[in-house]
Amino acid sequence: MSFLLKSTKERADVWGKLFRRELPDLPFHVWPETGNPEDVQFLVTWEPPPDLLTSFPNLEVIFSVGAGVDQFDMTGIPDHVMIIRMIEPGLTEGMVEYVNWAVLTLHRDILTYIRQQRQHEWKPVHNKIASDRRVGIMGMGTLGSPVASALTKAGFRCSGWSRSRHEVEGVTSYAGPDELDAFLAVSEILICLLPLTDATRGILNAGLLSRLPKGAQIINAARGAHLIVPDLIAALDSGQLSAAILDVTSPEPLPADSPLWDDARVLITPHVASISQTETAGRVLLDTVRRYLAGERHFPSMVDRSKGY
Amino acid sequence: MSFLLKSTKERADVWGKLFRRELPDLPFHVWPETGNPEDVQFLVTWEPPPDLLTSFPNLEVIFSVGAGVDQFDMTGIPDHVMIIRMIEPGLTEGMVEYVNWAVLTLHRDILTYIRQQRQHEWKPVHNKIASDRRVGIMGMGTLGSPVASALTKAGFRCSGWSRSRHEVEGVTSYAGPDELDAFLAVSEILICLLPLTDATRGILNAGLLSRLPKGAQIINAARGAHLIVPDLIAALDSGQLSAAILDVTSPEPLPADSPLWDDARVLITPHVASISQTETAGRVLLDTVRRYLAGERHFPSMVDRSKGY
Repeated sequence: MSFLLKSTKERADVWGKLFRRELPDLPFHVWPETGNPEDVQFLVTWEPPPDLLTSFPNLEVIFSVGAGVDQFDMTGIPDHVMIIRMIEPGLTEGMVEYVNWAVLTLHRDILTYIRQQRQHEWKPVHNKIASDRRVGIMGMGTLGSPVASALTKAGFRCSGWSRSRHEVEGVTSYAGPDELDAFLAVSEILICLLPLTDATRGILNAGLLSRLPKGAQIINAARGAHLIVPDLIAALDSGQLSAAILDVTSPEPLPADSPLWDDARVLITPHVASISQTETAGRVLLDTVRRYLAGERHFPSMVDRSKGY
Repeated sequence: MSFLLKSTKERADVWGKLFRRELPDLPFHVWPETGNPEDVQFLVTWEPPPDLLTSFPNLEVIFSVGAGVDQFDMTGIPDHVMIIRMIEPGLTEGMVEYVNWAVLTLHRDILTYIRQQRQHEWKPVHNKIASDRRVGIMGMGTLGSPVASALTKAGFRCSGWSRSRHEVEGVTSYAGPDELDAFLAVSEILICLLPLTDATRGILNAGLLSRLPKGAQIINAARGAHLIVPDLIAALDSGQLSAAILDVTSPEPLPADSPLWDDARVLITPHVASISQTETAGRVLLDTVRRYLAGERHFPSMVDRSKGY
């Protein structure tokens, strides 16, 4: 059996060194060098290569280097292959930091000040205090829950919504389609951290945006395909929304002719909210492989194929 | 004896109601209505009126509605009049929030992304993690210390520098002129929260900026006169500094022809970092007046005329 990495040179260097030291009996290959393909038991990748089953007939586990697996073509992955998402402290910390920044940016009207600066205009905007600002987090999993917790500690009034109920101290919890409207009604700043699945694709559409409080603001740090861009622009034009911060677009990179680039109500960052930190991710990967080799077959970061995440 | 308020209508409404209810025996006047000027014992104002001594011969205490008193002409205020700055939880909370936002903005290279958005450019910048980012706070008083504490909790490596030593858990402490260089050398993001006095006017000048690490970034949330603008621009041009966030300028509003407006390496907010919150400030004011009336003559927020703050 062997371990195959298809990723960046930096990860190959750091993880290769770690694995060869800690698990010297497990051959560590770096794509395109695969060793004997029949020996490959573990594959770490952002996107699996085509013809996975024929290329690596004895593959048992695929690790995604990211928190999401929507980039995987699931139809090409046999059911018996376990898929594990990357959940590691560095990735979580980066997302907490980014969302904290984005919420503060909207809470303090910074997009207005950026526009005013271009016009050489000095005009303070009255701002409410954090404890009067209601923030809603869609997606309360391994990223959303720590984000909600951090925003609550920063003084914001937070609600969380997800498919199944997640309780976080100080956060009002909403779950399932029946409670979505009540959640949206209290989300002056709405943050999308949902996984991208058939059930969530296009969820940030005209219907949903119309149920937010008038003048609401949104942050998308999940996947570009969650958002219907023409619906966002219409909501900004009508005043239903006042601003948006987008870290993700569909496609990426955002095409140069997208109307989003020149929209002063929209701030775009190029998918930088959070990436796996090589050091901490390597430790998580090593720990998971060790436990798998010891016979463990259940991991919290394991993908449930029926839910798609 | 009486209490005179020279400030906004909002404060007059809220504080008037509070004082008339809690201290019914102390007449509460709202400028320009002063009652008998000889009765005025307490004055709350942003800037004292001229001819203070002749107008109000029995004045004992002047309260500033702001954290600073540099807007006061001290020469017009007799030595026996006590001057008290506004230190209240709402003001502190606002400053912690603003500086947190500003540090995250610089830490995550958001000014670069704003520039790239204007050019329709999608280009992620590699960013270091918070625990590798060294942040320095100049001024470790009633605002600087809570700011340093919050940034430390957010994961940054913080140092603080002030005239006299202030110890804050997790923050490396520097004090006095002898330790300034050592402090500057570890300040990749430098935050100015100093009081404005003759000793600190123009402190953010070419000499100081040259002792920061190459490519450092600065935040001024204190007073515009702390910063020498041509020195800032020269440091940005040479690459010694990479970005600046300025909440204060000299004069304010920033004149329309200032080169700062169109400088994409500079983000300007119109003195909005923090203002006194009417409700919480009213409670602090009431509490201080009560203690003064009960004979207390020492308050932490009292101005030391020899230091100027």
